[in-house]
Amino acid sequence: MYGSEKVYKKIEVIGVSKKGIEAAIEMALSKAKKTVHKLSWFEVEEIHGHIGEDGTVNEYQVLLKVAFQLED
Amino acid sequence: MYGSEKVYKKIEVIGVSKKGIEAAIEMALSKAKKTVHKLSWFEVEEIHGHIGEDGTVNEYQVLLKVAFQLED
Amino acid sequence: MYGSEKVYKKIEVIGVSKKGIEAAIEMALSKAKKTVHKLSWFEVEEIHGHIGEDGTVNEYQVLLKVAFQLED
Amino acid sequence: MYGSEKVYKKIEVIGVSKKGIEAAIEMALSKAKKTVHKLSWFEVEEIHGHIGEDGTVNEYQVLLKVAFQLED
Amino acid sequence: MYGSEKVYKKIEVIGVSKKGIEAAIEMALSKAKKTVHKLSWFEVEEIHGHIGEDGTVNEYQVLLKVAFQLED
Amino acid sequence: MYGSEKVYKKIEVIGVSKKGIEAAIEMALSKAKKTVHKLSWFEVEEIHGHIGEDGTVNEYQVLLKVAFQLED
Amino acid sequence: MYGSEKVYKKIEVIGVSKKGIEAAIEMALSKAKKTVHKLSWFEVEEIHGHIGEDGTVNEYQVLLKVAFQLED
Amino acid sequence: MYGSEKVYKKIEVIGVSKKGIEAAIEMALSKAKKTVHKLSWFEVEEIHGHIGEDGTVNEYQVLLKVAFQLED
Amino acid sequence: MYGSEKVYKKIEVIGVSKKGIEAAIEMALSKAKKTVHKLSWFEVEEIHGHIGEDGTVNEYQVLLKVAFQLED
Amino acid sequence: MYGSEKVYKKIEVIGVSKKGIEAAIEMALSKAKKTVHKLSWFEVEEIHGHIGEDGTVNEYQVLLKVAFQLED
Amino acid sequence: MYGSEKVYKKIEVIGVSKKGIEAAIEMALSKAKKTVHKLSWFEVEEIHGHIGEDGTVNEYQVLLKVAFQLED
Amino acid sequence: MYGSEKVYKKIEVIGVSKKGIEAAIEMALSKAKKTVHKLSWFEVEEIHGHIGEDGTVNEYQVLLKVAFQLED
Repeated sequence: MYGSEKVYKKIEVIGVSKKGIEAAIEMALSKAKKTVHKLSWFEVEEIHGHIGEDGTVNEYQVLLKVAFQLED
Repeated sequence: MYGSEKVYKKIEVIGVSKKGIEAAIEMALSKAKKTVHKLSWFEVEEIHGHIGEDGTVNEYQVLLKVAFQLED
Repeated sequence: MYGSEKVYKKIEVIGVSKKGIEAAIEMALSKAKKTVHKLSWFEVEEIHGHIGEDGTVNEYQVLLKVAFQLED
Repeated sequence: MYGSEKVYKKIEVIGVSKKGIEAAIEMALSKAKKTVHKLSWFEVEEIHGHIGEDGTVNEYQVLLKVAFQLED
Repeated sequence: MYGSEKVYKKIEVIGVSKKGIEAAIEMALSKAKKTVHKLSWFEVEEIHGHIGEDGTVNEYQVLLKVAFQLED
Repeated sequence: MYGSEKVYKKIEVIGVSKKGIEAAIEMALSKAKKTVHKLSWFEVEEIHGHIGEDGTVNEYQVLLKVAFQLED
Repeated sequence: MYGSEKVYKKIEVIGVSKKGIEAAIEMALSKAKKTVHKLSWFEVEEIHGHIGEDGTVNEYQVLLKVAFQLED
Repeated sequence: MYGSEKVYKKIEVIGVSKKGIEAAIEMALSKAKKTVHKLSWFEVEEIHGHIGEDGTVNEYQVLLKVAFQLED
Repeated sequence: MYGSEKVYKKIEVIGVSKKGIEAAIEMALSKAKKTVHKLSWFEVEEIHGHIGEDGTVNEYQVLLKVAFQLED
Repeated sequence: MYGSEKVYKKIEVIGVSKKGIEAAIEMALSKAKKTVHKLSWFEVEEIHGHIGEDGTVNEYQVLLKVAFQLED
Repeated sequence: MYGSEKVYKKIEVIGVSKKGIEAAIEMALSKAKKTVHKLSWFEVEEIHGHIGEDGTVNEYQVLLKVAFQLED
Repeated sequence: MYGSEKVYKKIEVIGVSKKGIEAAIEMALSKAKKTVHKLSWFEVEEIHGHIGEDGTVNEYQVLLKVAFQLED
């Protein structure tokens, strides 16, 4: 509801997945939701990755800010 | 043609799609091309998203700068 | 409604008012809404001001990004 | 006391209020102090807002970094 | 007149010219003034250029923010 | 007068006030004008604050760049 | 092995692909590994693209910093 | 192990020490490790300090982002 | 002489000239050297300009940081 | 040709010239083209300069990113 | 005393020393305190250095912002 | 010699050392000088580090830009 007084908190998490950028984002959220309720939105801050011995990406590392509403 | 005098304009649009980052980019362009001719290139400025009640991404929101040439 | 495909546009406007920062923001919005429907949110980019001959602020100049949904 | 060894932590919170920027800051602090002791200072990171159907601001959203000293 | 309530809008344009940076700026303005009245000031955001086959600059591309007052 | 050759200088000052952001800006200017003539404009760089023992803001600290014209 | 003295170098490469962001990243790495051994990680700096005459993306251009260890 | 799905969290802490920059970093980590397991890496965000009455540094204040792996 | 202990100070000045960017830089330096000895180097921070009623640049405003060595 | 897979590399060079900003850019390119083929575009990152004993600019130093296509 | 109205000024100085980063900071402060009273805090903006003919650091150059309270 | 036409190149290297920040910088330079002549100056871009199992720093990782003059 817009217009009511409320407070959100933002935390930074890095999701890691071999499958791609969207999978790394979902990985991060799947972990965050275990300890935090009411996840609301995320912002991608950095997209990094590790390169395997064969010279291809072997994991995507996506740094997110994740926001959630603090309960009363 | 490089070397001729010309002018481009850049606008900011946010494409929203449930399917992923590339789909959100295409969504933004499909709308922009209805009012602007000669779209030339885009630059991703921000990748945000909304998180559904089940804690997964329910939409990607990609902020683009889109450039197009101004006609004479 | 989250999850549906849509597109927003962002424009930059500077509201100017002698009364303060919030008044300059409202000034900018009052003008923007005359030509654009469905204003959705704003982001303050810069807070500047002009200083009068008596050395006090004689106007606040607040640069906003204002977002609105493009209609189908 | 300057010169003694100590550690601070910084968290990010977003205070939301209809009344203005300072009110949104106080809203954020009023919530943060319920779980954290010894709040020390804050830094405004972003000033955003939502625009109502009448085209005026219906809430200010102020993103703060808030610092507090970790106890021994 | 400082102190009166008013609103400016900022747009982004890229002027392209073979002759140099100032010429690219003037090129951008010469186009912008055809559709917008009361151009007021500009800010250089980026200076880029294209390099010809002989390895010299064959065009300067200067990205400007251009501000103009919105009329009542 | 636009178009004449001139030089401005910019300095950084931090105004501190318990009353709010605009009051902190005016505080900074009231001090700056004692040593500098022809203050022209200001730009807000940072909005910080100190939090009192009761968890509310006990001072706003606003960092400004202030510009003034150098006299001949 | 953490703790041993070593030196990495970072270079900037832009991978271009029609298929999407991850494909453009892999394209850049496939080229970089031809001249450099021991590619270690990458950081996405920019995601740009070119828009075709039909108004859809006809190539993604992803600017990466790629790091690799300098051999003794 | 690269390639496995995992999630890191990043927090911000400020270590304070009279002895120097590296000592302030170690101070921050010594505190962080009391509540968090598996600290993995840090990034220096800011190096500030307080100046004593004799005009020399009487404490270094180093703002770190510290990352650690979230356990399953 | 590299290797000896010394201190520089940096100030911000804005040179204004109708003639172009380099002329505005020289304008700023010609003023700065009247009060400061041993100007050493400059860094361009911003290139702005004012647009005349005919829609062309009527002055360039170049913000410089200028560094000079403090004498013993 | 847009749409084909390819890779560009970006390097950083600083061109130095007494004559002005454009001359410093051309100086940098004239050197870069001796070792690299297919220079494609450049981006100005910084404009610095050294000030002579008479208080005027005695060299412009322009930091460029220069991009070129890697050959197959 | 927090809560009282006051004004700080910030200046930029570069301390140079062969001995290291902390020594360069102290060098800058030792000079600044000769002309300014009540130095309060500093912020490191840049850490640069010059490299000698033997390829090792022959001086550290640390750019600081230094803040001090303006007296009534 | 200031005022003569010349070109510098900048590269990015990361020096790693257990001993501290200055040692990591020297480590980077000791490696860079093996392949490049006339190293001229460096700029610290990032200070990161790895944390050992005991929760203390087990290596500093300092990202430098290193500049050197291109020979004729």
